[in-house]
Amino acid sequence: MKQKIAIQGIKGCFHHQVALEYFGENIEIKECLSFDALVTSVFDKTVDIGVMAIENSIAGSIIPNYALIDHNNLHVIGEHYINVNHNLMVLPGQRIEDITEVHSHPMALLQCKAFFKQYPHIKLVEGADTAESAKKVKENQLLGIGAIASQTAAELYELEVLNTKIQTIKNNSTRFVIVKTENSVLSKDQINKASLRFELAHKRGSLAAVLNVMSDCHLSLTKIQSLPIIEEPWKYAFFVNVTFQEYADYEKAVTLLRIMADKFKILGEYKNAMK
Amino acid sequence: MKQKIAIQGIKGCFHHQVALEYFGENIEIKECLSFDALVTSVFDKTVDIGVMAIENSIAGSIIPNYALIDHNNLHVIGEHYINVNHNLMVLPGQRIEDITEVHSHPMALLQCKAFFKQYPHIKLVEGADTAESAKKVKENQLLGIGAIASQTAAELYELEVLNTKIQTIKNNSTRFVIVKTENSVLSKDQINKASLRFELAHKRGSLAAVLNVMSDCHLSLTKIQSLPIIEEPWKYAFFVNVTFQEYADYEKAVTLLRIMADKFKILGEYKNAMK
Repeated sequence: MKQKIAIQGIKGCFHHQVALEYFGENIEIKECLSFDALVTSVFDKTVDIGVMAIENSIAGSIIPNYALIDHNNLHVIGEHYINVNHNLMVLPGQRIEDITEVHSHPMALLQCKAFFKQYPHIKLVEGADTAESAKKVKENQLLGIGAIASQTAAELYELEVLNTKIQTIKNNSTRFVIVKTENSVLSKDQINKASLRFELAHKRGSLAAVLNVMSDCHLSLTKIQSLPIIEEPWKYAFFVNVTFQEYADYEKAVTLLRIMADKFKILGEYKNAMK
Repeated sequence: MKQKIAIQGIKGCFHHQVALEYFGENIEIKECLSFDALVTSVFDKTVDIGVMAIENSIAGSIIPNYALIDHNNLHVIGEHYINVNHNLMVLPGQRIEDITEVHSHPMALLQCKAFFKQYPHIKLVEGADTAESAKKVKENQLLGIGAIASQTAAELYELEVLNTKIQTIKNNSTRFVIVKTENSVLSKDQINKASLRFELAHKRGSLAAVLNVMSDCHLSLTKIQSLPIIEEPWKYAFFVNVTFQEYADYEKAVTLLRIMADKFKILGEYKNAMK
């Protein structure tokens, strides 16, 4: 039976690309129009697993998605990184001279604005989504209209890619997490990364003490982010990712951190996908 | 002579509210349509000072604005916090029963969606900006149309507020920074907060060592955020805010951190505005 995977966006979007790279072709995709809808699908068992963007190198953490995982007690069972590459695609046979409008998500248009300076005859038009802009070009057989979207979208909607990697910042990285309602099925020797959340009172040295324990237990930090807790002034929540070689080292650190920090919580234990 | 202050958005937006609260009424406002345009105005001396949103308790840090400050070597000379309150405003005399559409920025509409569930006859329409939606209601004398915007916008555009604080998360906090091309004119005894940026190699314990120094020098952390440096894998940039009582303690820490961390940089030294 095919695994059912919920993605945010429609087929051909970057979440879809991640699902294909992570799980392979033999999956059934459920398109969700918001991250909330995605979480609902995971919970009501319409799907087995969800794929969620969680941070990128340009805009940082997507804090609302951290909150969704935290508040719904979802488990992070894996991670995947992609370089978000924007491509200009059109109906087969169309050339750049034929194109008068290019449609895409506002953020994609912004990231590719510099590329279009050399084509002043092209108007940039905001659409709901990258993949949806590509889908519309295909479905409505729009001559003279291009879309900015992923390679996956070009293949899916049989569009011709005129230019690849047209975004200004070529080198970027977006991290996606794979979420489930149950914990990972990985064995301890497969796990070498974990996402943790805990709270600390605003006391000088409290975070340093926690990081010392992590360091003493041979954990390496790959991410740290503080967030003030509005309801409790002078208290901070921390989201931390750690990598390690021995699960026993990590277990020891967790035992200590449960004592040192408040509301300590493991958001997920999984295999490090960073290259 | 009036100080010239650049804000992101048009008059009546939350940046305008911050400028009024921070500098008082005797200022001249320059409306900027993007943060890039704001930075340009600060640089070409069209204005004296810029006001920029930098983080909020719902969505976290606005990383692109950190990058703007960092890359342009702007100085943070102050900070200001506000609770972003959304208000439903209409032409004077209009009642909620008269309203069929409410216009605002998509994010404001999202934050107030729950409130409108009790008014199924009202359609929510996306506009460019909160203050601009309010301005349009006034300028075009739009009967039957409401706007969601700040109290400042209601006063400026002479609209009647039907409901205050209609956002779902009542208690939120957005931090703004005051930026300039030159460093602060504050004396050392007025300064009790600083924003720092530095880089560390991905070596176990490297951040713990830095935090230990800060703690030993009596600095308290109010924010920490790591960002991977894409061009240099396994290297991380950190944005940190610290508070302190004695400037001498802070100076000592800075001397040590310059040696311990790479590309250590003071983004600004200013007066703590956190309550």
